[in-house]
Amino acid sequence: MPRAPIEYRDASPKVRAVFDDIKRTRQVDDVNNFWKYLAHDPVTLARTWQSVKEVMVPSALDPLTKEMIYLAVSVTNGCGYCIASHTAAARKAGMSEAMFGQVMAVVGMANETNRLANGYRVPIDPAFE
Amino acid sequence: MPRAPIEYRDASPKVRAVFDDIKRTRQVDDVNNFWKYLAHDPVTLARTWQSVKEVMVPSALDPLTKEMIYLAVSVTNGCGYCIASHTAAARKAGMSEAMFGQVMAVVGMANETNRLANGYRVPIDPAFE
Amino acid sequence: MPRAPIEYRDASPKVRAVFDDIKRTRQVDDVNNFWKYLAHDPVTLARTWQSVKEVMVPSALDPLTKEMIYLAVSVTNGCGYCIASHTAAARKAGMSEAMFGQVMAVVGMANETNRLANGYRVPIDPAFE
Amino acid sequence: MPRAPIEYRDASPKVRAVFDDIKRTRQVDDVNNFWKYLAHDPVTLARTWQSVKEVMVPSALDPLTKEMIYLAVSVTNGCGYCIASHTAAARKAGMSEAMFGQVMAVVGMANETNRLANGYRVPIDPAFE
Amino acid sequence: MPRAPIEYRDASPKVRAVFDDIKRTRQVDDVNNFWKYLAHDPVTLARTWQSVKEVMVPSALDPLTKEMIYLAVSVTNGCGYCIASHTAAARKAGMSEAMFGQVMAVVGMANETNRLANGYRVPIDPAFE
Amino acid sequence: MPRAPIEYRDASPKVRAVFDDIKRTRQVDDVNNFWKYLAHDPVTLARTWQSVKEVMVPSALDPLTKEMIYLAVSVTNGCGYCIASHTAAARKAGMSEAMFGQVMAVVGMANETNRLANGYRVPIDPAFE
Repeated sequence: MPRAPIEYRDASPKVRAVFDDIKRTRQVDDVNNFWKYLAHDPVTLARTWQSVKEVMVPSALDPLTKEMIYLAVSVTNGCGYCIASHTAAARKAGMSEAMFGQVMAVVGMANETNRLANGYRVPIDPAFE
Repeated sequence: MPRAPIEYRDASPKVRAVFDDIKRTRQVDDVNNFWKYLAHDPVTLARTWQSVKEVMVPSALDPLTKEMIYLAVSVTNGCGYCIASHTAAARKAGMSEAMFGQVMAVVGMANETNRLANGYRVPIDPAFE
Repeated sequence: MPRAPIEYRDASPKVRAVFDDIKRTRQVDDVNNFWKYLAHDPVTLARTWQSVKEVMVPSALDPLTKEMIYLAVSVTNGCGYCIASHTAAARKAGMSEAMFGQVMAVVGMANETNRLANGYRVPIDPAFE
Repeated sequence: MPRAPIEYRDASPKVRAVFDDIKRTRQVDDVNNFWKYLAHDPVTLARTWQSVKEVMVPSALDPLTKEMIYLAVSVTNGCGYCIASHTAAARKAGMSEAMFGQVMAVVGMANETNRLANGYRVPIDPAFE
Repeated sequence: MPRAPIEYRDASPKVRAVFDDIKRTRQVDDVNNFWKYLAHDPVTLARTWQSVKEVMVPSALDPLTKEMIYLAVSVTNGCGYCIASHTAAARKAGMSEAMFGQVMAVVGMANETNRLANGYRVPIDPAFE
Repeated sequence: MPRAPIEYRDASPKVRAVFDDIKRTRQVDDVNNFWKYLAHDPVTLARTWQSVKEVMVPSALDPLTKEMIYLAVSVTNGCGYCIASHTAAARKAGMSEAMFGQVMAVVGMANETNRLANGYRVPIDPAFE
């Protein structure tokens, strides 16, 4: 039997503290299913949230660029949940439909040329070494 | 025996025309190994270049963002040639070391949480549907 | 139209022999959908079962460890059916919720650091060669 | 320290029997490195060879088609050894340079459209169900 | 909210032109969902269709072989939509149930031996270089 | 030009602190190349080490089992560096050659049956839901 999501009202204080920080940081009323399922392992929940929070903070790259990269990886890996949630997150961060189309076009192209490079066994150019 | 790269001097007119367009578009003196190997199949060479050229043109996303997404996909797929060539291309388009570090951090995180979502069998939130 | 599962009552003698061996070996009343679908190709069914049976037998590694490795691969590949069936199999072999959480944590971490090693193009240490 | 290949002269009788069968079946003087490394685990060596032998035998598909499919999977997975060995095997089975180019073109295209289908979250057409 | 498919009656002239060419080329009454979703980005729609059309045309390889390679890649990547649509396309091109079983057997075997080659760190045979 | 490893003598105090903790925790004289390259991004270095340290600590699973799962994922992803380093780490944690052979056998089998489940489009058994 698969796990059920752990809702705030049923969560331990440790889990609630993480949920509270997610809601505060993201300015949302509730956390996504991802966190409600990770809550089955409070140590992994806390570490994963701390890592995501640190990685996704605006820095050398803005949040929109980061979300589009997150989406590009999720599409490459074929993770259905992650495609849905990071499409939503990227839109919230400002991704337009035209930008989405461009992300998909680049992801598609990269997946194609990655295999052409593999199959033709292309050696790395000295200029890249 | 693996293929050898096809150099400009040995290329057919059809291949030379593609090489010329790559050099003109990218303002470079010679094309990368990727194109010299694809030249074994002039039809695929021409189509792939036309597609890459169309996809990587500045549009809703700037060339730097596109190159970083290309790199993120290549790292996820573990394509050694593509990681080397698109790291170089992204740097040429303006990627700083700090930006590179951020791309890697997001790619790493996305590959981790993609698997956590898979393993916990997280259902898509109604809000994303 | 997708295939339908082949039930025992409708199976050929060759398929029934495999089903019988699965049920006997695993002490179960019926075989999983995986086998009922593979039954469309009795040769592949028989070979796959023989191989799984040989690989999963207790040996240098115990069945629980093997099932957790099977689950880790399935999560990495994002195979929904396999994640569901091998989570169930690992639990039957003794995987606790805490163990499941640890498998996921390691799988997540490995998928992250695999990409960091790719992206930073880390050369293999002489000590590992 | 990585393993060394196990050569025929140093092999156990069980391993020699497999090597002999490979050489006889494929009409070759020596086995590839793949088998010399798998020989560190004689049970896996024997099972893998039996399976490969059974799968690659001419049947509903001819050996050339099978080798091209093997190559297509290896290119998609980015397995360097497998790309080299199955390119060689496919050539031996009759793959021309033009055929190789077509395999690569299809593999590239499939890897691209697989991601477009993922990213656009395309639902399966009722006609395919 | 996910995108909706774009039906012919709601499509722009540019999109209709692509849909018309797909229907004419494939002799079908309507296009698959894949194209109806890609229609959100008419440039990607047109380029992808031109590429697929060029790649899948009978040439050094016949359409059935190409469709089976397409299916093999889609199964390796675990793309649910693509597995459904290319199983249908391969059947239409003449793939029998026995052929389907053989494609699956080869794909399974290749995915297994790709990992054995990775894990045993098998160096490429000089004969393949 | 690829990055160079950052050696202890050239490292900033922040990086040295992480290197010191790795050496102390693992009882080693020097850190692996992985950490010397990640040192180009001290924030990612520190976070990744903290995460790895937390995940790989003995808990519901012993360190040997965790290292074998790490290896299984690395082999599935085809990460050359990670296969080399985690084979070494697993051996240090007690993995015998027989155990290594079993890990590879399970990884191979899982990668095969993952694709058979994909290709045959096997629906999840009600018992697993």
